[in-house]
Amino acid sequence: MIDDPEALRAFLEDFASRPGRKVLVHGGGRAATALSKRLGIETKMIEGRRVTDAATLDIATMVYAGLANKQIVAQLQALGCNAIGLCGADANAIKAHKRPAEPIDYGFVGDIDSVNAPMLKHLTDAGIVPVLCAITHDGNGQLLNTNADSVAQSVATALAQLTDVALCYSFEQLGVMRDIADPASLIKEITPALYTELKADGTISGGMIPKLDNAFRAISAGVKSVSIGATKIMDR
Amino acid sequence: MIDDPEALRAFLEDFASRPGRKVLVHGGGRAATALSKRLGIETKMIEGRRVTDAATLDIATMVYAGLANKQIVAQLQALGCNAIGLCGADANAIKAHKRPAEPIDYGFVGDIDSVNAPMLKHLTDAGIVPVLCAITHDGNGQLLNTNADSVAQSVATALAQLTDVALCYSFEQLGVMRDIADPASLIKEITPALYTELKADGTISGGMIPKLDNAFRAISAGVKSVSIGATKIMDR
Repeated sequence: MIDDPEALRAFLEDFASRPGRKVLVHGGGRAATALSKRLGIETKMIEGRRVTDAATLDIATMVYAGLANKQIVAQLQALGCNAIGLCGADANAIKAHKRPAEPIDYGFVGDIDSVNAPMLKHLTDAGIVPVLCAITHDGNGQLLNTNADSVAQSVATALAQLTDVALCYSFEQLGVMRDIADPASLIKEITPALYTELKADGTISGGMIPKLDNAFRAISAGVKSVSIGATKIMDR
Repeated sequence: MIDDPEALRAFLEDFASRPGRKVLVHGGGRAATALSKRLGIETKMIEGRRVTDAATLDIATMVYAGLANKQIVAQLQALGCNAIGLCGADANAIKAHKRPAEPIDYGFVGDIDSVNAPMLKHLTDAGIVPVLCAITHDGNGQLLNTNADSVAQSVATALAQLTDVALCYSFEQLGVMRDIADPASLIKEITPALYTELKADGTISGGMIPKLDNAFRAISAGVKSVSIGATKIMDR
């Protein structure tokens, strides 16, 4: 929805209106790919996944930590929500390490090691709303491109050690569905057993698998409630 | 120095090593102009000053709030300095209004109305080092491109109401000089009277005038000590 100003506005209005302490994690939509294209930087893909070379990392940093993050923060401020935009380097919010080059070299891609949950909780306790983009750092000066769903899961899991957390994945679909074309096929609750079954018969595939893996990881690590759109993730 | 990785690194090492509470304000160097050029966006100038249209604002936001800010923060973190990168929208750090379109329409350029000094002081008291880029917001969702020297002056002046502040303008020259080619011509102290004299005889001109105006504004508004490179700004 980050690519659609109307949808983003509606989402941010809803988000701003929700009471209580909250954190927003966002990706960057298609703007990074579009900017790469305009700059004539080739998007390298390996097995359907983008490779982050140095030029692509700069673009991701500009688009995610710069344009998308600051536009979201400015809109939330206008809605009376005291947002603060952060990447993982800011106040050491999220530390990661560069994914090993073997077996596949994805370049400057980060896998998360730790989340500075006390700092994030300190901000939310003060009425400030952290808005996190999916750029992390390795503590040695290197920024790293990181999966936004993984950031959301890691942040929720780390905060769950300090306080009760609900993790809501916003989603362009209604939720997890057996048939994308049929709203009636929405799965209201998904258990690990049902997930295994739906993966085995091919109902759930592709990009939904890492998303659901992250969701199940969060619920089993102590996050009180996890949802993907209208689908509730059950720990059993 | 932001365009020169070696110079930036040396500066950040020096900055990180300084004791006490501190705030860093930075511009974006020539990277924004270079990116505009690569994207085929014309840089419009009026009377030697750049006009910030919507496309140019997006580029400034990407380069200043994104790439430059996060690279500085990641490097400071590696140096053991707990930096947090902010634009003016973040936690409502700096509010500005769009400069009136009359007599000259500079586009999305902001003149500063207020600085959230209590929030910045709260961060520095907690051992966190705010790193501010020169993108501000108007509180109604609009980001604005702002002069970095003015941001530094406004932040120093606002913090000076709460605590003792020294404002140091980093500078590519040794300091304010009568003759750029002659290091011996460095002006060690500059008073308002000397400034008036040096402007009248043309020794000080061009971009040095707004820089010095900002410096004198800060010293007369309660900032304890103001310097431009090795030149000390005196209030009388």
